[in-house]
Amino acid sequence: MDTVTVDLGERSYPILIGPGLLGRRGLLDPHLSGHQVLIVSNTTVAPLYLDATRALLDPERHHIETLILPDGESYKTLETVNRIYDALLEHHFDRRCTLIALGGGVIGDMVGFAAATYQRGVDFIQIPTTLLAQVDSSVGGKTGVNHPLGKNMIGAFHQPRCVIADTDTLNTLDDRQLSAGLAEVIKYGLIRDPEFFHWQERHIQALLARDTDALTHAIRRSCEDKAEIVAADEREAGVRALLNLGHTFGHAIETATGYRHWLHGEAVGTGMLIAADLSVRLGWLDPADYRRIETLIIEAGLPTRAPADLDPDRFLSLMARDKKVQHGKIRLILLKGIGQAVISDDYDPELLRETLEAHHALPEHSGLGI
Amino acid sequence: MDTVTVDLGERSYPILIGPGLLGRRGLLDPHLSGHQVLIVSNTTVAPLYLDATRALLDPERHHIETLILPDGESYKTLETVNRIYDALLEHHFDRRCTLIALGGGVIGDMVGFAAATYQRGVDFIQIPTTLLAQVDSSVGGKTGVNHPLGKNMIGAFHQPRCVIADTDTLNTLDDRQLSAGLAEVIKYGLIRDPEFFHWQERHIQALLARDTDALTHAIRRSCEDKAEIVAADEREAGVRALLNLGHTFGHAIETATGYRHWLHGEAVGTGMLIAADLSVRLGWLDPADYRRIETLIIEAGLPTRAPADLDPDRFLSLMARDKKVQHGKIRLILLKGIGQAVISDDYDPELLRETLEAHHALPEHSGLGI
Repeated sequence: MDTVTVDLGERSYPILIGPGLLGRRGLLDPHLSGHQVLIVSNTTVAPLYLDATRALLDPERHHIETLILPDGESYKTLETVNRIYDALLEHHFDRRCTLIALGGGVIGDMVGFAAATYQRGVDFIQIPTTLLAQVDSSVGGKTGVNHPLGKNMIGAFHQPRCVIADTDTLNTLDDRQLSAGLAEVIKYGLIRDPEFFHWQERHIQALLARDTDALTHAIRRSCEDKAEIVAADEREAGVRALLNLGHTFGHAIETATGYRHWLHGEAVGTGMLIAADLSVRLGWLDPADYRRIETLIIEAGLPTRAPADLDPDRFLSLMARDKKVQHGKIRLILLKGIGQAVISDDYDPELLRETLEAHHALPEHSGLGI
Repeated sequence: MDTVTVDLGERSYPILIGPGLLGRRGLLDPHLSGHQVLIVSNTTVAPLYLDATRALLDPERHHIETLILPDGESYKTLETVNRIYDALLEHHFDRRCTLIALGGGVIGDMVGFAAATYQRGVDFIQIPTTLLAQVDSSVGGKTGVNHPLGKNMIGAFHQPRCVIADTDTLNTLDDRQLSAGLAEVIKYGLIRDPEFFHWQERHIQALLARDTDALTHAIRRSCEDKAEIVAADEREAGVRALLNLGHTFGHAIETATGYRHWLHGEAVGTGMLIAADLSVRLGWLDPADYRRIETLIIEAGLPTRAPADLDPDRFLSLMARDKKVQHGKIRLILLKGIGQAVISDDYDPELLRETLEAHHALPEHSGLGI
């Protein structure tokens, strides 16, 4: 078992990474302060891992309740979070209770937000079961839900007590979900870790074949990258924004498609490519590096083309709603090289439009076809 | 103008107290970091003070939007908060926006919660227009909404940038609201400030007559008491719980009556009296002090009797849902003297039941008659 620590003073917590973690009875005990525990999962993950998660806890010592929610980003809403509040209140859970999020990023974000806001804040534990959640969304304390007018617009910063990334859970992940997770892995290489990017170029086939060693390395390295960034800037006043590479473009794709057809990681993959394209047009990124990025994204099984009906005007209008907007100017994460991301609103807006127009003119087949 | 500072390091902020503050153009400027401002008020307060609040801001420099919500504790829900999110998103408000809460405790709690959770946290300013909000709810960063199964069950800690308590706004307050505010003023005397309690005994008629000097003194002293407690224990790990004197009983009354008939301060007034009664039965409080408390609460125009249909069993069951419950034991704030409150679950539960039974057997006429 590998351990990566997110260093946030009294709010520090460990990320435990490795195979077989869900079989280790007592693993959560050091991280539970009260005896009331609500495990929240979804209809896809619960049949696979709910029993194992329950078995981590001693039923003699803990009052365990479970809640199974529908699966999918389209359910990441205040209404669904309200179902978590209902369950907590019906079972008379008090301030010392702990919520456990068992599932992907959607479950983690919603359970984290419920924990942030139930009785003004209770403990929670992340047990991410997708690659995307293991390398990104379960770490760092960003919680929240979507609003019909924008993604993740409602939320809070609330750090978990610990994160359990059992690599065995990736064996039940479908290929699209695995690729979506790889988008965030590629992101770490692009923004700050050129050596990791190079490693990915050499190990992409092993990752796709779910080689345990390759996956464990990718998860640990991703978590180390993320933990360093979060420790430096917990509330995204500066450097943490780099983690949003590809996200402003990606969120526009997700909003345009109603959070239904594209997986978050797929949208981020396409978004990173558009960001790289703009970076080339600005003269910041070497076209040869753009081709390396494109190749890796394609090899990872990710789409490279936004939906055909998302024309540049609509794209820009959706991007303008993003949280990164300040004073009406869209701040973007752009690349000055592989491993060298920058936050910038100092670019020619015409080049952004030109990038989106060129992207829109690309042949259909490189997208999801939706 | 008096200023009381809530000392919370980088989250410190001033409470400005005095007459005529809503006429001081530019008063908010030092506390606004962005240019987008949403003023949220209700149908009762907006006709009286919305224009004055708008006039505090320079329309050339600020993008000002307004939202008027229905009035009343029964609207303190997630659904109403969602209307605030809608307004913010429709107007493309970004992370640097500021929300202004113009109204009583309900508006302050909801706007504060919206600010805590919009884009994971934006600035807000409190302009409380009731005595209760000026002396209590606008100070200290507790924000949130009710749930059908319990009061203030959903919320967050989020400190305002400043609090503007214009004593002139109390001239439009109805007598019931004024009395409800006095309940929280009396609370500070009871929990930690015997001198202030004695001052209140001597000035209760001046307060009821809305004498500006008396009100200003009561507000400043209350805010000083609250600011000291909040600075010592922002997130209610200890001493801050004393501020809940009367609240566990009061919340049960409010929940039982659907947040419709009783004002929060009225329920707290009756709740403090029940807490004092239990304190006498425990042998902790001198019966003569109980009579002083009862006299002041009656003189303040507050009810002293819970609803007749709230029998002891139901009372206990509703109290068991309170946030102060730990491991199933109801922690109460009780009195060892006037100015000496303690947090305790070390009492005989039979005495609690006996207190509620004796209370239930009291004659009707001392309550609200509902």
